[in-house]
Amino acid sequence: MLIVKKFGGSSVANKERVYNVAERILEDYKKGNDVVVVLSAQGDTTDELIAKAKEINPNPSRREMDMILTTGEQQSVALMSMALQNLGYPAISLNAYQVKMHTTSVYSNARLKRIDAERINLELERKNIVLVTGFQGINKYDDITTLGRGGSDTTAVAIAAELNADKCEIYTDVDGVYTADPRVVKDAVKLNEITYDEMLELASLGAKVLHNRSVELAKKYGVDLVVRSSLTKAEGTIVREECKMEKMLVSGVAADKNVARVAAIGIKDEPGKAFGLFSILAKHNINVDIILQSIGRNNTKDISFTVPRDALEDTKKILQDNLSRISAERIEYDDSVSKVSIVGAGMASNPGVAAVMFESLYDADINIKMISTSEIKISVLINEKDTDSAVNAIHEGFKDRF
Amino acid sequence: MLIVKKFGGSSVANKERVYNVAERILEDYKKGNDVVVVLSAQGDTTDELIAKAKEINPNPSRREMDMILTTGEQQSVALMSMALQNLGYPAISLNAYQVKMHTTSVYSNARLKRIDAERINLELERKNIVLVTGFQGINKYDDITTLGRGGSDTTAVAIAAELNADKCEIYTDVDGVYTADPRVVKDAVKLNEITYDEMLELASLGAKVLHNRSVELAKKYGVDLVVRSSLTKAEGTIVREECKMEKMLVSGVAADKNVARVAAIGIKDEPGKAFGLFSILAKHNINVDIILQSIGRNNTKDISFTVPRDALEDTKKILQDNLSRISAERIEYDDSVSKVSIVGAGMASNPGVAAVMFESLYDADINIKMISTSEIKISVLINEKDTDSAVNAIHEGFKDRF
Repeated sequence: MLIVKKFGGSSVANKERVYNVAERILEDYKKGNDVVVVLSAQGDTTDELIAKAKEINPNPSRREMDMILTTGEQQSVALMSMALQNLGYPAISLNAYQVKMHTTSVYSNARLKRIDAERINLELERKNIVLVTGFQGINKYDDITTLGRGGSDTTAVAIAAELNADKCEIYTDVDGVYTADPRVVKDAVKLNEITYDEMLELASLGAKVLHNRSVELAKKYGVDLVVRSSLTKAEGTIVREECKMEKMLVSGVAADKNVARVAAIGIKDEPGKAFGLFSILAKHNINVDIILQSIGRNNTKDISFTVPRDALEDTKKILQDNLSRISAERIEYDDSVSKVSIVGAGMASNPGVAAVMFESLYDADINIKMISTSEIKISVLINEKDTDSAVNAIHEGFKDRF
Repeated sequence: MLIVKKFGGSSVANKERVYNVAERILEDYKKGNDVVVVLSAQGDTTDELIAKAKEINPNPSRREMDMILTTGEQQSVALMSMALQNLGYPAISLNAYQVKMHTTSVYSNARLKRIDAERINLELERKNIVLVTGFQGINKYDDITTLGRGGSDTTAVAIAAELNADKCEIYTDVDGVYTADPRVVKDAVKLNEITYDEMLELASLGAKVLHNRSVELAKKYGVDLVVRSSLTKAEGTIVREECKMEKMLVSGVAADKNVARVAAIGIKDEPGKAFGLFSILAKHNINVDIILQSIGRNNTKDISFTVPRDALEDTKKILQDNLSRISAERIEYDDSVSKVSIVGAGMASNPGVAAVMFESLYDADINIKMISTSEIKISVLINEKDTDSAVNAIHEGFKDRF
């Protein structure tokens, strides 16, 4: 069996943890499996390198930042190789250039284009445990790039896809994907399985287990992902195309507080007005989520929508500058809201789900401001202060259906 | 003009020094010159990385050591690039892979095979200041190697040779090559020029200014080397094939304390005995320097020779194990000696030089134990305690001839 494992920076932060990870790697290697391991930079290394760079230049170029930051992963893989060799096992470290991890040319936020698997395969044939630098790549100029947030997860999935690995294990500090944030919902349970689509919805809804890019890549190439803890031996959660067991009605409840509501009141009811509003925002890269349009009085309409809360200031400025084009009577803003969502692949074929959700919120005396639905997701906008009780109420409402 | 500059690790140890070096670089760049800069890892970085590695594995493999150590230079060049960009000048950092610095495959002590100048030339055409990682290369497997002691000097000279640079400046913490160690000889003077051959003799005799490999490479490709200080603006010393001014009689006095004398007394005067002795030592990689053979009594001879003092224990053991083959009556060892030498390209055509050296030592009441001469060098073995006074006496003897 060929297994790709990815460990984050905190998992290899010091000697003890390096050897802890080495043992996790050897568990599979000793069983005769081929093992490829993707590592991030140790602990605070990346932050220290950023500080070092900013001391020299407060606005360093992205190319040079990538040049300095990628030394962190190179140190990690060399150290892990030394640890495995010290335990008596053959290992070899490879950086992005040695693997040939080709990316686009956008420094600090490059996209993987392709991986040449030749070198990794050669080292696996030699029975080496192969340690690969996460997060980094090379562009067509032979320059070093980085993949941006969640980059090491993406590296691991891409290698698993290229090598046709039997599984790709992402080790984190939680032991899997839960039906809700366990810090908020006491009864949250760990899922054994979840589909890519559900995981994507949960990730974009604020469940910070896996980065969306890695899940998208896994979905595209059909890589079975396993999310598990580097600290315990628990089985973790498998993310795949189709879950073997009967489709779960609801796989999770997620909350997102990075949201604000904007309402344009009294827009003239003429064709193109709504289009104008959203095209202005799109031009400025403001990501609009839930949209609600209602009929006002005197031949006008009201349009409400949500934007990320950290984009609210920009949104205000943009709308202010374009008030005449939008031709609204006034614009209202509300940054004390949050979005609570349920995600489930079985939802599409079961019309009762929304009713259960709304009833749970009603019973908990929580007011719904906006509603948005997709095939596998229902989101509601509520007052931010109600977030935790809403998540608990909904989770309770579905407790027999997870 | 195309100038290659090399700065050591202490020259870029912190922000202040990074900017000091940046200013030195810009002096030449602002005059319209093309500038390529070779850097070592900052300050103690290499030692810290070695400690980090040894904590994980007391005997790390050389391949993995090279993998971790080379991150130090990569950080240096990125930071220097950021500093130059912050001052408003175009700069780009390149590592060994990007330059294509091809070496042999011997990890931790690789030899440069060739450099592809294409990328550096491209960046120079774009008017970039090009910052190149010293000390490192890639082998034919695309793996990272290091060049061993003095590696960054070698990198600089090799690049200068490949690019046909007008000069290659090696910045150190001294402001040039002196006629003797200024800490020992008060009147030592800085040389404006010195030939490669003289420099090679001085370097191997213990003047720790330039590493031999870099001087050999400079000689091979006719690269004009300049040794100068990163702290002062003094002109430094030019190392080249032929010095423009009349050949100096003596260019320097050097002392080497890493020497011990071995005497094999009463060897049977038969053919092959001396050969046997030295072939045994050669087989064990013991570097024999001055050799003196004298006729003993009763058809025997005595052979004295010097070895590096740090090889004396090995030498003792080897000779003890092979006593019967050598057939000496006894072997004597003396580790309280030192070697003092004068070097000068003009020496060959001036037979009076040796006499001046011996007279100076006689006047200072210093006993000569062995003598060795070459075309451009005369070495004497003396008691170690006399080293400094010998260097001073000889320097004084030649003071009008430097």
